[in-house]
Amino acid sequence: MREEFIQVFITGGTFDKEYNFITGQLYFKDTHLNEMFVRGRCTLELDIKTLMMIDSLEMCDADREIIKHNCISTKTDKIIITHGTDTMVKTAKVLSDAGIEGKTIVLTGAMIPYAFGTSSDGFFNMGSSLGFVQTLPPGVYISMNGRYFQWNKVKKNRQTGFFENITS
Amino acid sequence: MREEFIQVFITGGTFDKEYNFITGQLYFKDTHLNEMFVRGRCTLELDIKTLMMIDSLEMCDADREIIKHNCISTKTDKIIITHGTDTMVKTAKVLSDAGIEGKTIVLTGAMIPYAFGTSSDGFFNMGSSLGFVQTLPPGVYISMNGRYFQWNKVKKNRQTGFFENITS
Amino acid sequence: MREEFIQVFITGGTFDKEYNFITGQLYFKDTHLNEMFVRGRCTLELDIKTLMMIDSLEMCDADREIIKHNCISTKTDKIIITHGTDTMVKTAKVLSDAGIEGKTIVLTGAMIPYAFGTSSDGFFNMGSSLGFVQTLPPGVYISMNGRYFQWNKVKKNRQTGFFENITS
Amino acid sequence: MREEFIQVFITGGTFDKEYNFITGQLYFKDTHLNEMFVRGRCTLELDIKTLMMIDSLEMCDADREIIKHNCISTKTDKIIITHGTDTMVKTAKVLSDAGIEGKTIVLTGAMIPYAFGTSSDGFFNMGSSLGFVQTLPPGVYISMNGRYFQWNKVKKNRQTGFFENITS
Repeated sequence: MREEFIQVFITGGTFDKEYNFITGQLYFKDTHLNEMFVRGRCTLELDIKTLMMIDSLEMCDADREIIKHNCISTKTDKIIITHGTDTMVKTAKVLSDAGIEGKTIVLTGAMIPYAFGTSSDGFFNMGSSLGFVQTLPPGVYISMNGRYFQWNKVKKNRQTGFFENITS
Repeated sequence: MREEFIQVFITGGTFDKEYNFITGQLYFKDTHLNEMFVRGRCTLELDIKTLMMIDSLEMCDADREIIKHNCISTKTDKIIITHGTDTMVKTAKVLSDAGIEGKTIVLTGAMIPYAFGTSSDGFFNMGSSLGFVQTLPPGVYISMNGRYFQWNKVKKNRQTGFFENITS
Repeated sequence: MREEFIQVFITGGTFDKEYNFITGQLYFKDTHLNEMFVRGRCTLELDIKTLMMIDSLEMCDADREIIKHNCISTKTDKIIITHGTDTMVKTAKVLSDAGIEGKTIVLTGAMIPYAFGTSSDGFFNMGSSLGFVQTLPPGVYISMNGRYFQWNKVKKNRQTGFFENITS
Repeated sequence: MREEFIQVFITGGTFDKEYNFITGQLYFKDTHLNEMFVRGRCTLELDIKTLMMIDSLEMCDADREIIKHNCISTKTDKIIITHGTDTMVKTAKVLSDAGIEGKTIVLTGAMIPYAFGTSSDGFFNMGSSLGFVQTLPPGVYISMNGRYFQWNKVKKNRQTGFFENITS
């Protein structure tokens, strides 16, 4: 039996990066997701679970297996995954190939860390993703730039940082 | 013939309020919507039009007629309206009573002005509304707190500031 | 015997105002001073004490007596007072008339609440005030707009919100 | 003849770094100094000049010669230099060794870029530096953490990121 909550899986990505003022590098500490839902005054029933906190360029097959396993085992049919933008489509393919039935899976991310204040797109993307996960039919989607894309009809343009439809 | 863009109508509300440091009062100057879509790196085709810049407690019948007229005359079937939260449901009723067919109309707002930086819920609500307007069937909806509500099944709880389902 | 710490007295003012999203009014909750010194990575020895949390237009004689009493009794010779800008000069006069000897007293404030994020001048003003309180000779000063003023040679221009020298 | 304005020299450093969302690296684009003085509602007469935009770890002898030359040739006796924190003391030594007489030179910086919003210490440090440059006697100083230090009695603690007095 499917339950009504929305499952949010955290995997890291630019979304949750922070600035280390000692080293001058970006790194991961704690997720900002909880704080974002409070600020968004979100009253949806959410289950937020951190699966990993990594840069998506460093995500390996085993990591994607963990994500897949969690998508399969969660009891709800509405799943949002925060993910680095560079390999978002690759993870989406793994989830699609897994043949998970009856679940709407939305991968989202940010181009600028949420921790960088009013310049970040993360808060907006999370809002859009919540909209899409509650309304789209089962499938695996990418949500970026206010839009949703079928996972197999999108690519990230590395020159501009925007996600674009693949027109085949 | 319906066109593909999303129509955004601005009516004011807390969303667009600013702090006047001379008088210490909140007031309206320019809208922040354009800036929000840039920050959200939104690549949807949008048509943004300011209908008025007022507090929704001061919105009168003539103002609602203007909103209705614009919803009827726009050539697209996807409409977002930014609106003060206090009378959002009242305007939604006017739009519903107008019998506008085949259009998805989403009213949204904010509890804290966008101009107040990282405490505002406005950017998140706009993200959600973009999600809902692209996916919900024709009708008039309220989008707040990460959720959508049928316009006639929701009320604002004045004590908490949250929108709640009316369970009749 | 004088001690080395800097005394910070909080009286409220725009500095510490917040937005009440239920009523749409500005109000006082907790001070933001501690958070500001953490963010400023301040390593000075500070003693921060909230004397009151009020709008300076509502400050009465008894309130100014409290401020005066505290300035007299603190064991340090370096005092910063956060204060609403509208009657800052009036309080400064009370402190000057008290004939407090050997103490540098700097009154400062903000035109936009610290809680309103990256638009506020409060963080900058607190930085300046720390600079002035450590270096100016004993006396009563106003610190605003990156400058310091002798308390009796300044007025707030109500039209512009800037503090200006009185040229007599 | 000395003039009344404050000279601000920009050299880059963390202060002015920005996040490149394409590469995920920090870089320099335009300075934020002008915007900071507007936000601080600063009414001092300032002359702001960008000498270079570099990381202070990459600053070479020729760069320091440029800074020195500009400090010598400016017509005012009040100079603020924004600078990366890692070699701030080294540049201060060059300026001190130059034997510039009658000028108060304050070097300041930030541990977190100004562009990263409400987490940055830069705005506070600029406020302090304005306070110090207007009040300290001629000499070369470092202003960080709300304090000023004689250039030859301070070191940056690389483990903590704080500036500390050298107690010899």
